[in-house]
Amino acid sequence: MLTTRTYNFSAGPAMLPESVLKTAQRELLNWDGLGCSVMEISHRSPQFRTLLDKAENSLRSLLNIPNDYHVLFLSGATRTQFAMLPMNLLTSTERGAYLISGVWSEMAFKEASQTNQAYCVSNSESSNFLTLPEYDLDDFLSNTAYLYYIPNETIQGIRFPTVPTADVPLIADMTSCLLTEPIRVSDYGVIFAGTQKNIGPAGLTIVIIRNSLLENMPENSGIPTMLDYRTHVKHRSLYATPPSFNCYMTALMLEWMQSQGGVETLFQQNCEKAAKLYQAIDDSPHYHCPVTKEARSIVNVCFTLAQSGREDAFFKQAEQRGLYGLRGHRLTGGIRASLYNAMSMAGVEALVDFMSAFR
Amino acid sequence: MLTTRTYNFSAGPAMLPESVLKTAQRELLNWDGLGCSVMEISHRSPQFRTLLDKAENSLRSLLNIPNDYHVLFLSGATRTQFAMLPMNLLTSTERGAYLISGVWSEMAFKEASQTNQAYCVSNSESSNFLTLPEYDLDDFLSNTAYLYYIPNETIQGIRFPTVPTADVPLIADMTSCLLTEPIRVSDYGVIFAGTQKNIGPAGLTIVIIRNSLLENMPENSGIPTMLDYRTHVKHRSLYATPPSFNCYMTALMLEWMQSQGGVETLFQQNCEKAAKLYQAIDDSPHYHCPVTKEARSIVNVCFTLAQSGREDAFFKQAEQRGLYGLRGHRLTGGIRASLYNAMSMAGVEALVDFMSAFR
Repeated sequence: MLTTRTYNFSAGPAMLPESVLKTAQRELLNWDGLGCSVMEISHRSPQFRTLLDKAENSLRSLLNIPNDYHVLFLSGATRTQFAMLPMNLLTSTERGAYLISGVWSEMAFKEASQTNQAYCVSNSESSNFLTLPEYDLDDFLSNTAYLYYIPNETIQGIRFPTVPTADVPLIADMTSCLLTEPIRVSDYGVIFAGTQKNIGPAGLTIVIIRNSLLENMPENSGIPTMLDYRTHVKHRSLYATPPSFNCYMTALMLEWMQSQGGVETLFQQNCEKAAKLYQAIDDSPHYHCPVTKEARSIVNVCFTLAQSGREDAFFKQAEQRGLYGLRGHRLTGGIRASLYNAMSMAGVEALVDFMSAFR
Repeated sequence: MLTTRTYNFSAGPAMLPESVLKTAQRELLNWDGLGCSVMEISHRSPQFRTLLDKAENSLRSLLNIPNDYHVLFLSGATRTQFAMLPMNLLTSTERGAYLISGVWSEMAFKEASQTNQAYCVSNSESSNFLTLPEYDLDDFLSNTAYLYYIPNETIQGIRFPTVPTADVPLIADMTSCLLTEPIRVSDYGVIFAGTQKNIGPAGLTIVIIRNSLLENMPENSGIPTMLDYRTHVKHRSLYATPPSFNCYMTALMLEWMQSQGGVETLFQQNCEKAAKLYQAIDDSPHYHCPVTKEARSIVNVCFTLAQSGREDAFFKQAEQRGLYGLRGHRLTGGIRASLYNAMSMAGVEALVDFMSAFR
């Protein structure tokens, strides 16, 4: 049995800071002096409302969220948003535009096409999603209600270095990058992110939505109550029983991010971690990163071994050094090191050292 | 700050056994010898698949689930089932029948009416939901695909002592009673339950569904992917990232139930706990339980004070003794003591002692 903490480079669920886990461990049977676990208290108690308000305030402060945006903490998997977004934002005459830069945006597009009207503005599949999709404002069809895109695609390790241009509200799936770099919230109509990469354990989805977008839909739209954003706005994320422990961990993580110096500092650290690893790859004849340089992700570094057939040995020897979760996505193969907020420079250095020893 | 554990009588999230919380605490930073938390590992890792398989096997063993039933662990709140069930089980010509015995079944009926065709077979609202709804097999309309009911309604503390008669598959919301008493799974088409009362922390919903019910729906039914049971059957509950810590806690809880002697033993304990409390109420002129005796819940004991206006003092003094969560639902008022699986007889005795001192 290992006695020291290992490094997890998995694309998510991802590492959490040791200090946050230790706080959770210490408080697990007695939270807030109540003599019971935070898992055991009613979500209607004033203590829980305070916890959720604190999490919202931390997030608003970290991202400078304007007052005309709601912050929702929704239970369940992020993929539910793929259907919720078009169902909530598109009337029967409107359509959603999709920028397809990888597998996840393609899936969101397919889901929207199933429930509503959607079309693809541009698709970079011809480059195997190793470059960014290009488009012109003329490519938009009439009655387009939004442009959907994913600022960072985890599978190929692609990142948009700038915010796309559009005359319609932007919808951004920031599951892999929210809170890893500064953003201007007012550039977006909706931002959403599952917590399991940078923000906490899996099981919670954060939605940041501009109030005016909720006014589009008629009152009795037939949207299932749990899939209607207005339900959760009205009940301030407590319409149904929330995943309370996940909310608690997220609140701790947001506090931790504030204590680290906020998003600017985390971004600087994330850039340094990514630069260190890309340099080790680019400087070596044994490793290769296929992604075009200007579109390289700072949180998902995808690369391959120059010598084929040695991947299993790479993963096995890495695990022997306590470096886990390096296997690339099953659709692409190769190696993927995810360097989310909680991955330390020490973890990246351990990986670079191992890569040097392995070649 | 309290140094001893308190008793939480809240309707959910509910108490968890101290031994389970201590295991979670011990393993929080190093699970399964991996040198990291169970929150931090990939849901695609063999370790996580093993964890989920173990949970499923424990549940199958505790409830003797036949092989033609699927067991699903779904992320998110139980209320999503109110829409998922009719969307998955009703074709455009079919309708769902609802037995309305309280607020929760009424809400499920309203939700089904919004997405599909549904009707109420019988409603006990005229008794303020203090008796069970009565009906006859002649009351069913043609093209009825299922009968939906709630074996235990938490708000009024009502329980069906026997399984309702119907010529169609039964759908049962067992959120408050699954694993608190023996059931015959083959009596039901679908059983579902949120974990937050008897099974674990909030954030996970268990669905047990007979395979033949999934064959009703056409392939391209337009159901959002995450709301289609077949998605989760096909991917064995790992289509999207699951709430992994919640799955882990549920696995621990199911093991704990097995170690207690299984559902028969838990049922006996639950009956003894409820009997103790109802007797204290019925024997006293200071307390009153309005629910008809044959329909009294064994897990949600609802009662009132004979002397009005003293409730706040009751709750305040109870909390001073470490007895939390006794306030009745906001719709009914009064007192509610929820005695789920993890509530010990010692907790019930502490409540009865307090009630005796308070009067």
